[in-house]
Formats: sequence, C-alpha cells, structure tokens
Amino acid sequence: MTMLKVPDHQVAGHQARDGMLGPLVDDSGCFYKPLQDDERGSTELAFYTSLSHDNRIPNDIRQFFPIFYGTQLIEASNGTGLQPHLVLQNLMSDHDKPSVMDVKIGSRTWYPQASEAYIQKCLKKDKETTSLTLGFRISGLQAYESDESGFWKPKKKQIQGFNVEDVKLALRKFVSSNPISCEEPDCSLAATIYDGTDGILAQLEKLKEWFEDQTIFHFYSCSVLMIYEKEAATAGRSAAQIKLVDFAHVLKGEGVIDHNFLGGLCSLIKFVRNILNNPRECTAKDGSPESEKKQFYLENGYA
Amino acid sequence: MTMLKVPDHQVAGHQARDGMLGPLVDDSGCFYKPLQDDERGSTELAFYTSLSHDNRIPNDIRQFFPIFYGTQLIEASNGTGLQPHLVLQNLMSDHDKPSVMDVKIGSRTWYPQASEAYIQKCLKKDKETTSLTLGFRISGLQAYESDESGFWKPKKKQIQGFNVEDVKLALRKFVSSNPISCEEPDCSLAATIYDGTDGILAQLEKLKEWFEDQTIFHFYSCSVLMIYEKEAATAGRSAAQIKLVDFAHVLKGEGVIDHNFLGGLCSLIKFVRNILNNPRECTAKDGSPESEKKQFYLENGYA
Repeated sequence: MTMLKVPDHQVAGHQARDGMLGPLVDDSGCFYKPLQDDERGSTELAFYTSLSHDNRIPNDIRQFFPIFYGTQLIEASNGTGLQPHLVLQNLMSDHDKPSVMDVKIGSRTWYPQASEAYIQKCLKKDKETTSLTLGFRISGLQAYESDESGFWKPKKKQIQGFNVEDVKLALRKFVSSNPISCEEPDCSLAATIYDGTDGILAQLEKLKEWFEDQTIFHFYSCSVLMIYEKEAATAGRSAAQIKLVDFAHVLKGEGVIDHNFLGGLCSLIKFVRNILNNPRECTAKDGSPESEKKQFYLENGYA
Repeated sequence: MTMLKVPDHQVAGHQARDGMLGPLVDDSGCFYKPLQDDERGSTELAFYTSLSHDNRIPNDIRQFFPIFYGTQLIEASNGTGLQPHLVLQNLMSDHDKPSVMDVKIGSRTWYPQASEAYIQKCLKKDKETTSLTLGFRISGLQAYESDESGFWKPKKKQIQGFNVEDVKLALRKFVSSNPISCEEPDCSLAATIYDGTDGILAQLEKLKEWFEDQTIFHFYSCSVLMIYEKEAATAGRSAAQIKLVDFAHVLKGEGVIDHNFLGGLCSLIKFVRNILNNPRECTAKDGSPESEKKQFYLENGYA
C-alpha cells in the first residue's frame, strides 16, 4: 500500500487537514480526490469517464485535462474509513516549488436547470466576487519568490475579496520576481510565462478556439489552473502549463457552445495580453474609480 | 416640414400605432426614435454622442451602427406634442421588402449595478426565453416569401415563446424561399446571405474580433439586426447587412471586455455556421429531448 499524504501545493478547494475530508497524493504521481456522495460526485465521475471515451475531443485539447485513472476505495482523510476517490494525475508531482493560480471561469457559476435556491446562492457569490464583472475570479494562488521568503500566498478570505484592481495586480505579481516584497511587481517573467508559442497565452488561445466550436460540454464552476516553476522560468525555460480542473457541475452541451465559459476565457486572455502589452504599467495607480457611476449619462441637455 | 409616418418594417420594440409612442420615419432616410425621459433615454443619447466622437472605434466597426444625426423636437406619435427624438439613419429606407431579424445578444440582459428588482425581472425573462441557454434570443423577425404570400412574420407572443429548436428553425426559414408555406425550410438563400466575404457570417466574425479587444462599451439588451432583400439575394447579390441597435443600457467598459455580449455573439455565429455546414438538415426532427435531464449522471456504480 502506497503512503498517502496531504498535497503540498493545493491553492483552492477542500483541504485534507485537521481531520477534514480532502484530496491526498501518493509518491507515484497520483492525486486522490474524494468522490462527493451526491450529484456532484456522480457528475464529476461521469465527466471523466465520458472524456476518456469521447473521440470527438482532439488530443491537443485532451492535454488540458488531468489524466484519469479510474476510481479507488481508499482510507478517507477525515477518518471515515474506505471511501471512493477519483484517481487523477497529480499535476504538481513534477514540480518542486510551483507557482499556481486557480481561476474559476464564467460570469455565472450556476446552470439554468439548477434550483432557485442554488441559483440565488451562486448569484450572490458571483456578485460579491469579480465573476460577474470580469467573467472569472481567482480562487487561489501561490507565487514562489525565493528560498528565503518562500511563497506569496494570500489567505482565502483575502482572495475572496479581490476586486478588479486586485485581480490585475495578482496576475502581474504571479509573473514577477518580487511578489511578496514589492508593491510594484516587476513582471520580469511575463514574457517567459505568458508569451511565446508555449506560453500561457498561446495555451489559453488554443483552448478558446476549441470552445468556439465544441458543443459537447458546458463547464460551470470549473477552473483553469496556471502552473509554472520559477527556477525553470528564470533560466528562460517556460514549461508553463494550463489545466482544467473541477467538473462537479458539467452539463451536456446539447448542440450549444459554452458561451458562459468562452466569454470568461476571452476576458482572462485580454487581461494577460494587457500585461504583455504594458509590462511596466503600475496597476496600483491606474485603477478607475470604483465609485464612479458607470452608466453613460447625458452631460448636456438635449434639443 | 417633412411628413412623418410609422415605419413599415419594424419587427421589435415599441410601435407608433393606435396612439402609442413609437418611432417615426420620413422620406429622406431618417428614423426618429422617441428619447425616453428616464435614464434609458439619456444613456442612449450619451452613447450615440460618444460613438460619434470616439476615434478609438475603427471605421469598419462604425459601419455596424446606424448613423446618428443628433436630436430633434418633433410631434410625438402619441399626441403629447413636441418631444425630443433621436434622429438616426433609417436602416430600411433603401429596402423594398426587407427580410429582417432582431437578435438580442447576451445571456444576461441586466448589468451588475442594476437594482435587485430590475435584476430579478430581467433574470426571469432571460430564463423564460433562450437568452440564458443560447446567449441570445430572437426579439422579432419578418422573412419575405413572395408578392402573393407576403411575409412570414410570427406574432410577438409566439416569438417570446421560442425554444432552442424554434430558434434553429427560424434561422433556417429566414434564408429559405418558403418560410411561410413549408415546414421544412429549403435554406436556398443560406449561401448567399450567410456565407461569402460580404455575408452575415463574415460581418458577425468582424464584429466578434472587435469585441475580443474593445473595452470601451458594455452592451446590455442590445440587438443585432440582420437585414437583406430577397429579390437581390435571389439574383445572387447578397447585400445582406448586420447593424447594432438599442443602446438604452450601454455601460462603460472600464478596461474589461464585454464577455456577456461576446459569448452570445459566438453562440449566434455557431448557429449560423451550423446551417452552412448542414443546409439540408431537417431541424424539426433533430431536436434533443428538452425533458431529458441534462446533467451528467453516473450510470454504473463506482469502485
């Protein structure tokens, strides 16, 4: 029996600490995610099963999903005995000090068929975060700075309170040498991580192209993970990658594109592109006044 | 003083009939739209004014908007005397028997800053129509068949009840020789109207490209009008055009793309492209069962 332990670099979602139920990892590159015992669990399992067998999904898109190895009964992290888990590729297993950002995509995290109570609950959260305005929200992140100072890893509560300017700043800090120590991120890794034929932007664009066409799945409350290793990036090797995770709320597309995911993805792409176009811009100062009335108003009388 | 009359080919919005307030047209190509005396009126006027003066808007995008000639006090159609009107290009003035479709874009017709009551009202309508599921809804349409049979012009109530299959069918009938007389549209004009370098699809794609980048405006509850003349189309001259109309709910973009409009536009593009890829498909029969539970379910036990 392999030794299972709590993952080192999880930035969002339930965590298997202090007797709570959460994912575990082993030494051989597997990530064990507890299968929720309601519709969410069955939906996520059905999605991974469908993904494995669906030959309409091109190989260069398949690489954006964690590899799925099936399900397994393992000892749950909360001491409730053997419980079914999804066995997935551990996306961090090849990494030493990964910088990771979890971006939940979509201005709407609820789906049309959901109950009224569920819709109102999600809508409230979408309004309180940047989901509604930006089409995405940051759910978790860590950015490695150095062995001495470690990671910039804002607390969950802090991230939940991110406004538009905080999101801009976080996307800059994520690719800066000085995410902890400096208010003005230097974006020194922006070109290596975000730009180039293998960069994050190119991968997001490839994903976007698929979303303009695919009508198989609709992904609600699903995240794009952005992952890179600073040491490699500093040496000029990007090796940045994006992965899609969290499929507890995937629906059949029924011949319609996932315009909710696609819109949010395009918005994220625009933010990343802005950083590449203005790497030196100080986001802390260019904020538009949040309090300003945003609707157009007539400033002069008419007629 | 020019003689004003009720427009012949209006397919959506308030109509100036039976003593109601609505737009009027003259003989020289102008369309007079009553300026609503609340925030909607001032917003629409401010938008047209801003559009006229904003040199960030490329000329090949500007052509998608009606020309704006200012405002004018004219006798209102409901007999309330002189009232301010927007003076706009009459998009139908060069047309004899225009086929017209009004497609309201966006899965959400409300904006984040709106009042709770307004949000809930719009959300209800978005759920009752195809806005939520498709990212757009048809608000009005007429498709010319022949001098004998006239136009296919479903009633407003009927259009409001359109489901996904009705929308697919309407987009086919819109480019068919037999929209009234036949259940199975022949899509005989699809290639001429939707396809080609000057076709609707190419124009929608150009608009999409702009929306992937522009962060000036957010368009809520705004429509794409698709207009063509059957006689020209039958003779192989497309002359189909799209125009954006209705700007009573335009907000400043504040550096963020309009992911809500963009998502819906991409969805409309996909529907049009599907017709070009399968012009002979009988949409009346390919419907997926609406009643089917749409979330993925586990069909076999796990572990």
